[in-house]
Amino acid sequence: MIASAMTDATLAQRLLDGDRRALARAITLVEDDRPEGWELVREVYPHTGKAAVYGFTGPPGVGKSTLIGALTKARREAGRSVGVLSIDPSSPFTHGALLGDRIRLTEHFLDQGVFIRSMANRGALGGLSEAALQAALLLDAAGREDVFVETVGVGQAEIDIIDHADTIVLVLMPGSGDSIQALKAGIMEIPDIIVINKADHPLTDTMVREIRGVLSLANVNGDSERGRTLKGIPRGHIPRGHAAVGWRVPIVKTEATHGKGIAELVQRLDEHRAHILAEGALQERRGRNLRNEVLAIATARMRRRLEDELREDADFKRLLHEVVERRLDPASAATALLEQRR
Amino acid sequence: MIASAMTDATLAQRLLDGDRRALARAITLVEDDRPEGWELVREVYPHTGKAAVYGFTGPPGVGKSTLIGALTKARREAGRSVGVLSIDPSSPFTHGALLGDRIRLTEHFLDQGVFIRSMANRGALGGLSEAALQAALLLDAAGREDVFVETVGVGQAEIDIIDHADTIVLVLMPGSGDSIQALKAGIMEIPDIIVINKADHPLTDTMVREIRGVLSLANVNGDSERGRTLKGIPRGHIPRGHAAVGWRVPIVKTEATHGKGIAELVQRLDEHRAHILAEGALQERRGRNLRNEVLAIATARMRRRLEDELREDADFKRLLHEVVERRLDPASAATALLEQRR
Repeated sequence: MIASAMTDATLAQRLLDGDRRALARAITLVEDDRPEGWELVREVYPHTGKAAVYGFTGPPGVGKSTLIGALTKARREAGRSVGVLSIDPSSPFTHGALLGDRIRLTEHFLDQGVFIRSMANRGALGGLSEAALQAALLLDAAGREDVFVETVGVGQAEIDIIDHADTIVLVLMPGSGDSIQALKAGIMEIPDIIVINKADHPLTDTMVREIRGVLSLANVNGDSERGRTLKGIPRGHIPRGHAAVGWRVPIVKTEATHGKGIAELVQRLDEHRAHILAEGALQERRGRNLRNEVLAIATARMRRRLEDELREDADFKRLLHEVVERRLDPASAATALLEQRR
Repeated sequence: MIASAMTDATLAQRLLDGDRRALARAITLVEDDRPEGWELVREVYPHTGKAAVYGFTGPPGVGKSTLIGALTKARREAGRSVGVLSIDPSSPFTHGALLGDRIRLTEHFLDQGVFIRSMANRGALGGLSEAALQAALLLDAAGREDVFVETVGVGQAEIDIIDHADTIVLVLMPGSGDSIQALKAGIMEIPDIIVINKADHPLTDTMVREIRGVLSLANVNGDSERGRTLKGIPRGHIPRGHAAVGWRVPIVKTEATHGKGIAELVQRLDEHRAHILAEGALQERRGRNLRNEVLAIATARMRRRLEDELREDADFKRLLHEVVERRLDPASAATALLEQRR
């Protein structure tokens, strides 16, 4: 009874005071899609917007989590508090970061100034993005000054949460040929900063040149906003032009396991932040992201509601049978479905 | 007046007779989201389900279109009619297939037995998948015996249409490190057939061994359905277990530009088809795909309706302002939004 006597009101207050246990519990509540979780976010939301949110995306295996580990160390040395949110199922964070050469991540688990949380596939139907966005807000409300979000992305559809970062970092390594091709083809969006990790590889400089070529092409087009959005493939209803006007995307070479290049990356992150603050781009970006977030949550709920309603629906089963028997086409079935639930 | 006097009824009949101009016009109608297009699909739908639909996915630059060109040649030599649908913005098909070494694709443009169509980003909000699915049905109704669908995919989120193929082929090349990592990490689904194109590369065999390792791991897990679906990342509400039980995913090495390996690929495609027919898996797969298609169309329409309604909505603008000013959290705004439109 004593543990459960921690009411939501005190939970909110403890969260705002930066209490780690309250933060952990709060994230679990949103992860489990519990009403108290949503209520909590509602309550602490006025205290958000202070954290600097950095999104790290890239193919599995490039070393995103080691990189975030190194950055966390740098931020801690500068006296800042850090939150890490990992939504990459292949990330060592997700697996407890206790294996093999990942041991160096564990030092942060003991540091009160660092809060690390991984989120896996909870709920269905966009539920993870939704929960992850709420979790990022909770970290922000709990006073984490820097929030690092890690997601996996090998192409056009990394998880939406990455869009809600203030600064987007694409991490690649020598051998990331597919990602380079996707950048070249305009299928992958150009981020704010590109990191080539594992740069102690003979092909690193070739890769840097290749990426420079892609970036210069994007610039030659003269239309930096368009150059940065997805060409030819629909991925969501709102075009996502990431980078601020006048920002030149830097390529940073790192060897995260040895801390090499981390100082430069920190500098670039700070420069990007200063740039978007000076240009008013941060407010604009956040405004656009919040709009997308409201729509994403609304859409996810509509889909979930539809799915829930149809799970045991006899009419829907009959409708599908007609489709399978080629008597009713899928689009007409969808029309019938939507009309039924008007 | 004479051209527009071609009523939808005669268009449907001409389409069913295999008329190429009727087919081209019909696809344009669905691509433009015209009601006549949807009506046409409704009308011809009972005549669909006969085509063998093959989906080709993979990163840009691996040679998917050259491969499809070579397969088209083989199918034509066997006397079969072919339809090609390209939804890859980086594909030479999309650009008219007239440039440089792509000239060999053009021979098919002159062959009445081959119908090639590329689709770009029309409409927003899932509109392309929706239109592409309808286009595939139109090709089927028009009597194309083999339909090759080409999409770009470098990770977990190739365009949904690929799910609606009977056989899914992942095309890679030496240097596709990111895709291999994504397969390894369980982030990319295992397809029915894997092709390594541009196999005249010293690292091809290393790559084949690496993929074999991934595949054997997926088998060792003992749960072939689960091994084939996406782990840990939500990508849609219905789990997509692709491959049929008892099917061993073959790895085929090709050099599409020289026609090398094409005979073997043709054989593997035929074997896969025979396998899913024998096991009843084709019917099962198609039933599941049709269900997904109905839900995808319904969801896309709900989203589009929401977007349309909100574009100039003053209440929504006020709601967003509250969110931006941190007075109302995004989830509560979404709740308010959905309640408004009940």
